[in-house]
This record gives sequence, C-alpha cells and structure tokens, in this order.
Amino acid sequence: MLEVYAFATPNSLKVSIALEELGLDYRLVPVNLRQGEQKGETFRALNPNAKVPVLVDRSSEPGVDDVVLGESAAILVYLAEKTGQLLAKEGLPRGKVFEQLFFHASGVSPAFLQAFLANLQSPPQPEAQARALLEVNRVLGVLNQHLEQRPYVAGETYSIADIAHFGWVWRHQAIGASLAEFPFVTRWYEEISARPAVVTAINKTLALAQ
Amino acid sequence: MLEVYAFATPNSLKVSIALEELGLDYRLVPVNLRQGEQKGETFRALNPNAKVPVLVDRSSEPGVDDVVLGESAAILVYLAEKTGQLLAKEGLPRGKVFEQLFFHASGVSPAFLQAFLANLQSPPQPEAQARALLEVNRVLGVLNQHLEQRPYVAGETYSIADIAHFGWVWRHQAIGASLAEFPFVTRWYEEISARPAVVTAINKTLALAQ
Repeated sequence: MLEVYAFATPNSLKVSIALEELGLDYRLVPVNLRQGEQKGETFRALNPNAKVPVLVDRSSEPGVDDVVLGESAAILVYLAEKTGQLLAKEGLPRGKVFEQLFFHASGVSPAFLQAFLANLQSPPQPEAQARALLEVNRVLGVLNQHLEQRPYVAGETYSIADIAHFGWVWRHQAIGASLAEFPFVTRWYEEISARPAVVTAINKTLALAQ
Repeated sequence: MLEVYAFATPNSLKVSIALEELGLDYRLVPVNLRQGEQKGETFRALNPNAKVPVLVDRSSEPGVDDVVLGESAAILVYLAEKTGQLLAKEGLPRGKVFEQLFFHASGVSPAFLQAFLANLQSPPQPEAQARALLEVNRVLGVLNQHLEQRPYVAGETYSIADIAHFGWVWRHQAIGASLAEFPFVTRWYEEISARPAVVTAINKTLALAQ
C-alpha cells in the first residue's frame, strides 16, 4: 500500500486527488504542520526540505530500494507513469503537461503562497497583500488564456497538470482572490470540483486537520 | 534545427547547457528582456506567461504539430526524453530527478529570484535583502545535505536536475550569496562549472546580452 505523509494543504490535496482518480490503494499519514512536525528529525529523514507531501512506495523486490519522494508534482509524475494514466505518452501533448506542471511549481504556486502568507501578517500589510494579489491575478490570467483555447490546461485531456493547478486554485477564496474575471478558469474549476474523485480527496485531506 | 528563444538569464542557460551536453544542433534567438520584448504580442503567442526560454522543435511530419514549449525544466525533460539521456528511465533514480526538478522550480528558483529582485530595489531595502538571503541559504543547505550523500543532486549520475540547479547557483555572487558554508555544494559547483559543455553554454548565453 502507498503511504502519503500529508496535511490539509493544497500540495497534499494534489496527491490525494491523483490517488483517488487512479483508484490506487493508499493511506494518509498526518504530519501536523501546526505543531511543526515537518521540521522534526523523523520527517526530515524522509524529506530534507521539510515539506509535505511525501510518498512512500515500498518495494516488494529484494535489493530494490523503496521509493521515497517529496514535491507534490514529482509524486504526480511518478503515479502517472506507474499507472500509464493522466499523462500523455509523447510529443507535444506530453510536453505541455510538463510545461504546465513547471508553470504551476514556479509561477502559480509561489504566487498563491505569497498571497497566503501576506494575509497572515499581523499587523495587516495591505500593500504586501495587494502586490501579492496582483501576481495571483496575472497567473490566473495566463491560465484563463490557456483554458479559452482548450478544455484542460495542457490540451484536450484531463491530466496531472489540471490536478496540480487545481490544488492551489481551490484555495482562491482563502487568499482573497476571485475567479469572477476569469470565465474559462471558472468553467474549468467548477467541472473539476464536481469530479467524484476530487470531492472524496478534498474530504479526506481536510479531515487531516480535524 | 532546434530554436531556443532566450536571453542572458539563469533559466535560458539551463537549456543551452542541456543542448551542449546532448550535442544537439540548435540556434539561440535573442529576446531582449531589457527592452521588454518578452511582453510583446509576437513572443506571447509562443508563451502566454511572457518568459524565456521557449523551445521550438519543428515537425518534419505532415499533420504533426510543432513542439513549442515554455518553462526551462519542461524543456529539459523534453530534450532528455527525446535523446534518452540525462534522465534515468525508471524507479527511484527517475523519481529523484523529478523531485529535484520540482524542488528547483518551487524552492530554489523563487528563493534566488526574490534575492535578485530584492537587490534591485532603490532605495536599498536591507531587511528585504536579508530575508531573501535567509531562504537562499536554507535551500543551499538542503542541496548541501543531498550532495553530502551522493555525487549529484538526484543520485549517482549527472542529470537534468543538476543542470536546473546549476542555472541559478551560477548566479550566487550576483545575489550576494556565498557557497563557503556549503562544502558539498562547492565541490559539485566547481565540478560542473568545469564541464566543457557548461563553459560553452555560459559563453553563448552571456553573448545574448552583448
């Protein structure tokens, strides 16, 4: 059985969604970020970067190492290649999934994270919040442009790139962003929110903080 | 022939290094960031995210689309899979390359970029610079831990993950960081800096700004 060290966070949710979509058997192991468990020695032996999620796929073959992976998008690639699903096999369609995964990691995810952190400041820092939201809206605009031309972020097919983007877009209200100006993102967001695997994954991920 | 829209930047350098290492025939097309060419309509038709580098691999088969890809790490994956080099084929070694590519995109690259931008502020903002350097040193510490245990960032073999990290670490002096406290990063940095493909790629990339 796969184990996922996780908490109620956007990056953890991405992995749960993929596992539900793929119908894989897995167990979520809670890492309580509020208590700083991710900074403890036990967890850092799994991921020196001290961040959830981490996937553990134990090997059943003698002499073959267990797979222990950090970085949600790397886990999505691993699961997609393990099952042959949610990631095109070659050419432009495959390249576009990776382009979107790295646009997510280097653009969308830092923008949403900055906005989330700006909102936590005390006393409130309206200038920092506004600056962070500007970049959130810029990346949502780029996504909107992609989704105007195609049903899913990387092309004609639902893929791990949609799952990656969804993980953070799911938190848009919490960071004070609105999808109202982005009609194609809204269409995509509503469709993905309604997928049974996504509903189940959200419930299981939120339960980690309860 | 492959075309790479690029400028004298860390992300552009990564692609040139991979192309030199793989011995592929390519042409660098300069996109002058100082004149804001990346924000023009022509360039944004290639990449709505308005960032270099972009790879164009023209199809020779009728009915098959050209490959047009943004995001340096997505281009690295594409080139590695096209040639079957610099990326392990399966299992943990492959997973670790992706883990490091996404750690680069979501951790190392934003940390270095923030420090670079903090240094450009006028008037100088010493607090913002110090805060940015703190995160740069944190991610360098994580890299140092990886490199204490293995010769390359993802394991026993030089891979596209080393090329990705090198692209930004190459700029450590420009952002006011030092490798002195990170002996294993220093060993790795010196070894990679001396590779003939890397020397050639740096020269070609710097020439784009001249």
